[in-house]
Order: sequence, then structure tokens, then C-alpha cells
Amino acid sequence: MANSKYEYVRHFELADNMLPNTWLVVRIDGRGFHRFSQSHDFAKPNDRRAIDLMNRCAIEVMKDVKDIVLAYGQSDEYSFIIPKTSNLYSRRSSKISSTVVSLFASNYVMHWAEYFDENKLKYAPCFDSRTVCYPNDKILRDYLSWRQADCHINNLYNTTFWALVKSGMTEKKAEDRLRGTFSKDKHEILFTEFNINYNNIDPIFRKGSTIIRQKTEVISISPRDFQEVKRIKLIPTAIHDDIIGQEFWDTHPDLLDNQ
Amino acid sequence: MANSKYEYVRHFELADNMLPNTWLVVRIDGRGFHRFSQSHDFAKPNDRRAIDLMNRCAIEVMKDVKDIVLAYGQSDEYSFIIPKTSNLYSRRSSKISSTVVSLFASNYVMHWAEYFDENKLKYAPCFDSRTVCYPNDKILRDYLSWRQADCHINNLYNTTFWALVKSGMTEKKAEDRLRGTFSKDKHEILFTEFNINYNNIDPIFRKGSTIIRQKTEVISISPRDFQEVKRIKLIPTAIHDDIIGQEFWDTHPDLLDNQ
Amino acid sequence: MANSKYEYVRHFELADNMLPNTWLVVRIDGRGFHRFSQSHDFAKPNDRRAIDLMNRCAIEVMKDVKDIVLAYGQSDEYSFIIPKTSNLYSRRSSKISSTVVSLFASNYVMHWAEYFDENKLKYAPCFDSRTVCYPNDKILRDYLSWRQADCHINNLYNTTFWALVKSGMTEKKAEDRLRGTFSKDKHEILFTEFNINYNNIDPIFRKGSTIIRQKTEVISISPRDFQEVKRIKLIPTAIHDDIIGQEFWDTHPDLLDNQ
Amino acid sequence: MANSKYEYVRHFELADNMLPNTWLVVRIDGRGFHRFSQSHDFAKPNDRRAIDLMNRCAIEVMKDVKDIVLAYGQSDEYSFIIPKTSNLYSRRSSKISSTVVSLFASNYVMHWAEYFDENKLKYAPCFDSRTVCYPNDKILRDYLSWRQADCHINNLYNTTFWALVKSGMTEKKAEDRLRGTFSKDKHEILFTEFNINYNNIDPIFRKGSTIIRQKTEVISISPRDFQEVKRIKLIPTAIHDDIIGQEFWDTHPDLLDNQ
Repeated sequence: MANSKYEYVRHFELADNMLPNTWLVVRIDGRGFHRFSQSHDFAKPNDRRAIDLMNRCAIEVMKDVKDIVLAYGQSDEYSFIIPKTSNLYSRRSSKISSTVVSLFASNYVMHWAEYFDENKLKYAPCFDSRTVCYPNDKILRDYLSWRQADCHINNLYNTTFWALVKSGMTEKKAEDRLRGTFSKDKHEILFTEFNINYNNIDPIFRKGSTIIRQKTEVISISPRDFQEVKRIKLIPTAIHDDIIGQEFWDTHPDLLDNQ
Repeated sequence: MANSKYEYVRHFELADNMLPNTWLVVRIDGRGFHRFSQSHDFAKPNDRRAIDLMNRCAIEVMKDVKDIVLAYGQSDEYSFIIPKTSNLYSRRSSKISSTVVSLFASNYVMHWAEYFDENKLKYAPCFDSRTVCYPNDKILRDYLSWRQADCHINNLYNTTFWALVKSGMTEKKAEDRLRGTFSKDKHEILFTEFNINYNNIDPIFRKGSTIIRQKTEVISISPRDFQEVKRIKLIPTAIHDDIIGQEFWDTHPDLLDNQ
Repeated sequence: MANSKYEYVRHFELADNMLPNTWLVVRIDGRGFHRFSQSHDFAKPNDRRAIDLMNRCAIEVMKDVKDIVLAYGQSDEYSFIIPKTSNLYSRRSSKISSTVVSLFASNYVMHWAEYFDENKLKYAPCFDSRTVCYPNDKILRDYLSWRQADCHINNLYNTTFWALVKSGMTEKKAEDRLRGTFSKDKHEILFTEFNINYNNIDPIFRKGSTIIRQKTEVISISPRDFQEVKRIKLIPTAIHDDIIGQEFWDTHPDLLDNQ
Repeated sequence: MANSKYEYVRHFELADNMLPNTWLVVRIDGRGFHRFSQSHDFAKPNDRRAIDLMNRCAIEVMKDVKDIVLAYGQSDEYSFIIPKTSNLYSRRSSKISSTVVSLFASNYVMHWAEYFDENKLKYAPCFDSRTVCYPNDKILRDYLSWRQADCHINNLYNTTFWALVKSGMTEKKAEDRLRGTFSKDKHEILFTEFNINYNNIDPIFRKGSTIIRQKTEVISISPRDFQEVKRIKLIPTAIHDDIIGQEFWDTHPDLLDNQ
């Protein structure tokens, strides 16, 4: 084979398998999404269309990559959870990272128009990704708590910041006003100055989105007798619960079970 | 900060920096592109639209990621070459791999309609990627020769195979006919049975595509006096040369120079 | 500083930190110990002096590297267990591996004469080492069970093999005799032909050696009044228990506890 | 096999092969050698016995590990150079690092008495090691220059420091005196105050030690006719040349050649 004298170059590809029996988390992050959100006129502090599109992409990734059992997203990032026992792509880090991120990115463009209508996509979005091992359930939960706490902190800040700005304050002044404030101070500003009870804000903004496979009734037409057939399927579905506390995990015992 | 008790999970992200002063090659590969090409009625043995779209994506990647000095593509794969001296993303493997592959994938969807017109995209394409170090110019050239020789071998086979099939042979029979044949046998079949001189086939199919930054005359309208202004810019451009021999590298001395 | 123009070479040393919150096992293995044992006339199937020396070295390593909580050894190998919570040398793999193996090797030579008397060391012994992560207690125990089961299998074979050879059989014949035999067959040969009840053989040979820190009464002379003072210290001590079953771990609950 | 249910633990040992076609450098460093040198009454600023012992160990390592083409040592460290083309232990990092460091450490103890006579070894020495890739000859030479420049800087400092201390200055005062001085200042102090021309100090102290395989005439007694037979063998030998400049490499062209 004419090719054989060059094939030695294969040996420069070094193994990058992840430690067995650990949770794998693939986290993707939008690159330059501050500019991207401005170019595409995202609403502030949250653009519901953008969030719904992110969730749609995560759902499409989970429909394709069956090993993913849960995904958590907020802002321009998403984390995909692969169980300890999975042997997806022999647990090769770059193979897993790149498959997830390229599926996410191509779905983002593919479904853009369904969420943004006339608002044309001006340039191709870009995400980075990494795959990280977490050795046990507690640490995995702490990872997810870290991301949801981050969502909470940022969303409370952004909600207050944009309320101030929309009321006429400059961005600089709003920043100064919020510097050094605690959580309760921001709640107070929102309530007294803008009559907003932060806890009544839509959970999709406060809690981010968690995709799990929910039992869902699916109706199909039987090809035999053209009757409607109802079946229960597991469909990746976004929910907006607190995942820091114990209740979520008690309600969904299969997620951490039998690992 | 409420988040701080969870932040320890950051320490599970281990460093994945690539060895300094080596060439970095990011190779992306279509996942399941046999099915993808059938679902989307790609012409056989080559679909010019599909190749042009791949090249377009590679060009868009190079416009965005300035550190890439050359890209080589064939079939459903593309290799992006980053110089030894580059410190792109501190040479972190997953950051580089994921940025390139997600840009490629999102551009693939974004520009699909420009190349495939009425032929709608049925589902989101997926690519994997990896980043590999090559320690010197000779080995980098051997890597590129490996990919171009692979292009040659596959294209000669596919050209002959599809000529046989289009002439009425079953795919099974065509496979049997070609089993164990040498390069010259396939040239002979093409010439005597189909009157095809393989060497006259479009180089884009025989040689694949190499993207380099070519000096290109760009005409713009001056905002001052509305006159046309000609400037020379370096624009990523696809060419279809032999990159195994010495001539290409002599013609483009900057590619390997001063590393 | 005259040195600064060369200091960039430091950047070629890439990080090799092990995943946090996992058990670390440093396993060292004698290199070429078949030849070494022959050159130094080790008794067959087991040389008590060689085993005692290996155990001594492991004890010296544990006296020096306080993070090691347990070591298990058999034949020419030793495994050192470092807890999940340890941050020894920032969990750098090569630093941990090399420190343990060089301490072991230098102690081996240093204490040789105490165990082998007139039997001079003919050449310097060599060991290799590696550090491996195990993500939880069960897998760590399975690792240790793997090594102790290996000890059992090899020792039963070797005991039977050398009984046959010492009774006058050639080594070739003894190998043929044992090929395909099960554990109970070897027990039977030992019992009926050599009147050896395998289970009565010294546990140091059947079970290998486990070093743990045992509470030990230490008597010292007070520098104040020259009276004897008894204190309880934790001293690394070799025992020869079964570590596959649950009993050992119940007896020493601190080993796996509070990780 | 009773062992098979535990054998899965093997899969936690991840590959650690070094990039092909790069120079491998194994650097070992004494751990806690400040205390070690004090416990064993090393002469200051340099103890010739200690240096000779280090060199002996490096020579023994090179006699055993044939792939090493050069070693450079100074103070309590040694670097071993393995060529780009070597496939030693399949280029597994931990295997290479641990073999070299354990051989070095065991030889250190084994040959101690030959160099330190009545001065007994009080405790086992310890070295760490790491294996680093260097992608080309220039960078390898810069690495070695880095180590030799380090030798020079430290030795000039130490020589001046101990001259001051031996002349009656306290260590604190000597430190203060030397703080912020340049190389020429230290030369000046040595010359004017102690009548020492630094350049006349034994090169083994100023340049460190480089071990290369030198053609050496070896005389043996023929077992046939009991005549003396002279043969030329390649024997690892310590020299004390400058290895920063070009001359050394011109004199020994095989070291970097044909890689």
C-alpha cells in the first residue's frame, strides 16, 4: 500500500482515556457569547428564546448520545453527565468532548430559526468543551450545585443590574451601586424599588434547566390498522427544579442509583 | 459567596497542555457520514457540493482562528495545522479541539443551503476531533502525505467501483472485481472499459483540498471619497495541489520557514 | 541572570497531577528478579530472608512517607496505599512514584546485610513503579484482593512445583504434571505425596505481608530522671492476614473510614 | 482462575507513553540533600567524594540502560538523555523514570563505602525523577546548557560564600555581602581577598560532569592461550567539559547525529 510508509504518524496520537468508574462531565461553554448576544439582540437580563434554543440543543444531544443521563444548563453553558459505568467511545476524552460539542453547535444553527424567527443568525456560534472525571456521587452533586449556585448568583445580579439600568441609571452607576452588596440587598432593591419579588421570577431563569429522561406518553398511528397507539417512552425533557437540595435526587432515584 | 463551598470541584479539571515547540494538528472527522451522505443523496463517487461545503467550513475556521496556517481536507475529514510557536489557548488540547470542531460544525449547517439548495438538511451533522503533536517539519509533512495518499487510494478505488456499478454491475460484484487489484489495474479498468484517464479527473477529487492564506486583491469602497480601493489581503483559499512532493513546499516557503 | 535565556525549557515539563479524591496506589515491581534471585541463591519456593528484607524496606518507606496508610507485598512487588484526601506532592504522579521507589531501592541495599549475612550483594537491584488512581473503597479493596489472590495462586503452584522437583522430578516434568491442574489437585499432591497440609504453611508465604501502623508500646529512657518511660506509638508493622474478606477491614476500621 | 474477578482493576492503569521522535530527559534530584549532606559531613563548597559517587552511579545506570547516550550531573542532580529514536519500555514515562531512579539510588548505597570509607551511611538517600520530552536538538542543548549554567552560577556563589565563612565571617554576614553582586564581583572577591583565580578551580566543580561512552582500551586475558588481549570498548566515562558551546558537540558528532 502506497500509504504504509507514512502510517507511522499514527503513533503520535497518544491515548487519552478517562479513569474508569468515575462520573464524566462534558461541559460546553459559549465562546465570545457576550458579543454574540449583543449582535443578535438578546433581551436582558435573560432572553427566553436563547434559553429555549440552548435547551433544545441539549435535548437533541441527549437523543443522540444515549449514555448521557442528565444535562444541566444556564446562561451560555451546558454540562452533560455520563455515568461511571459508561464505556462510551472507550472513555476517550477528545472523542467524547468533540462529539458532544459539535452536535450541540450544529443543532444550535439548525434550530435557530425556530426560536428567533426573523432574527437572522449573523455568524456561526462557537463553543468549547472539556471532559472532567468526578469520582463519586457526592462530588458530582457538588459539581452540579456549583453550576446552579453560579446561575443563582449571576441571575440575581443581572436581574437587579438591568432593573436599575432600565430605570434610567447608567451601566457604570448600576455597577457602583451593586458593588459589595449581599444577596439580601439585591432582593431588597428589587422589592422596594421595582416591586419585584425575586422568588416569583420564572424558575427557568433562577434555577437554570435540567434535562432528564421523563416517562412521556407518545401517541403514534399503528401502521397495521391506522389506530392511535399510546406508548410510554423516555423523552429528554427540561425541568427547572432546585438540584442542590436532596428532594430532586429523592424524586429521581435512578439518576445516582446502581452506579 | 454562596458558591465557594462547591468551588473545590474545579480542581478535578486536570491540565492538558500540549508539548511546546511542536506542530499541532487538529483533525476532525465526520461521524456516521456514510449514513449522512446517503440520507442527503450525495453523488457518488464524489459530491462536489459536499466538498465545496467542507472547504467553505475550513475557510471560515481559518478566518476565525488566525493561528492556523494550513488546512488539508478530503472526504469527510479536515486537518488544521497550527505552528510550533503558537500559544493558542495556552496549547490546551481540549480547548483547541473543541473550538475548531464546533466552529466547523456550526458553519456546516449555516452554509448548507448555499451549496445544497432545495436539498434540505435532515439532521444535524456531527464531527469528532483530536489534537496531535508532531515534533518536526518532516513528520508534519509525512502526516499530510499520509492524508493525501489516503485521498488518492480511496478516490481511485471509489472512482473505479462506481464506474463498474453505474455500468450495471452489482456492488457485490464490483467489490469482488476490485479485490486484490493494484493501482495500475484500476487505471487500466477505467481506461479500457470506461475511456476514463484517471489523471484527467478534476484534482479536487484526486488531491483533496489544501487551504492556505493567498495574497488576494480585494476591492473596497473608500468611506471617504467613495472611490474603489484595491488592497492585497491574505485570504484563506482552497487549492488542489500535490502536497507530498517538494514543489508545493518550495512554492510556499513561509509555511515551514522560521519555525 | 546568565541562566534566564535557557529557562524556557522548564515549560516542557507538563503537569501530571492525579485526580483528586481517589485512592492512589504506588506499585513497585522488581526488574529482572528471576535472575537476581538466582544470582543471590534465594531459597525455593520462598526465601524468608528476601521476604523479610522486602518488608523492612516497605516499613522504612512508610516511616518516611507518612501519607501511606497501608502497604501490601508479595514476591518481588509492593503496593503502597495513599488516601483519597492526601495532597502528597500535590498528587504529582512522577514525584510520588519516584520518591517511593528510590527510597525502597536504597533501603534494599542498605539493609541487605542484616538479612543475608555473608551472602554479598552482587549487583544493584532495580524496581519500576507506577501510580494508579482507584476511585472508591470497593475498587481499592478489589485491587488489594487481586494482589493477594495472585500471591495465593503463585505460592500454591510454586510450593507444589518445588516439592516435586526436590523429590527428584525434573523441572520440565514438574511443569507437565501441574499443567491444567486446579487448586484442589495441588492441595492433594502436597498432602498425599509430601504429607504437607498447605493450610499449615506459614501465612507469610500464603498471604503475603500487609504493613499497617499498629499501636506499639515503646520504652524510652527519660532524659530528665533516667527512668524508663512507656509510650504508645503507631509503628508500621507487618502482619500476614487475609485482606480479601471483610474481617480484616472490620478489625481496622480506620483504614477506609472517613475518606 | 480465582483471580479473574479482580483483574478488571488493571484497567485503571492509564497509558503514559511519551511523544515519539522527541528527546527524552530523565532528571533525578536528591530529596532533602541539604540535610543529607550535613548529616554525612560533606565538605563545603564541594565534596569530591560525593561528586565521584554521583558520577559512579550515573555510569552504572548507563551500563545497565544502554539507550542512554549521555548524562549530565551537578550538585545532587543528574539528567539522562535518551535519543528520539529510542523505544525504551515503549516510551512509558513512569517505567523509564522509575527504572533509572531506582538503579541510581541502589547504586548510591551500594558504592557509598568505596567513596566515603569509614564515614558510615546513616540513612537511605532518596531521589525523585521525572521524564520530559524535548522536540529537537536545539532545545535539548538548551536544556543541558540550562543545567550547566545553573552549576556555574551556584558553584561561583558557593565558592565565594564558603571562602568568606572559612575566613571567619558568619553565614549571615556572608549572605549579606553577596546579595546583589554580579559574577565579576565574586571573581574579584575571590581573587583579591583569597588569592583564588576562579578559572583555575577544578573543572569538575565549575562545569559539572558529563558521562559519554568513550572508546577505551580494555585488556583481558584470553581464555584460550592466556595471552593478554587488547580491545576497544565503549565505556561510559565522566568528563568535565563545557557543553554550552559548539566545540563539545563538534568533538562528539555522534551524540546529536542521525536522529
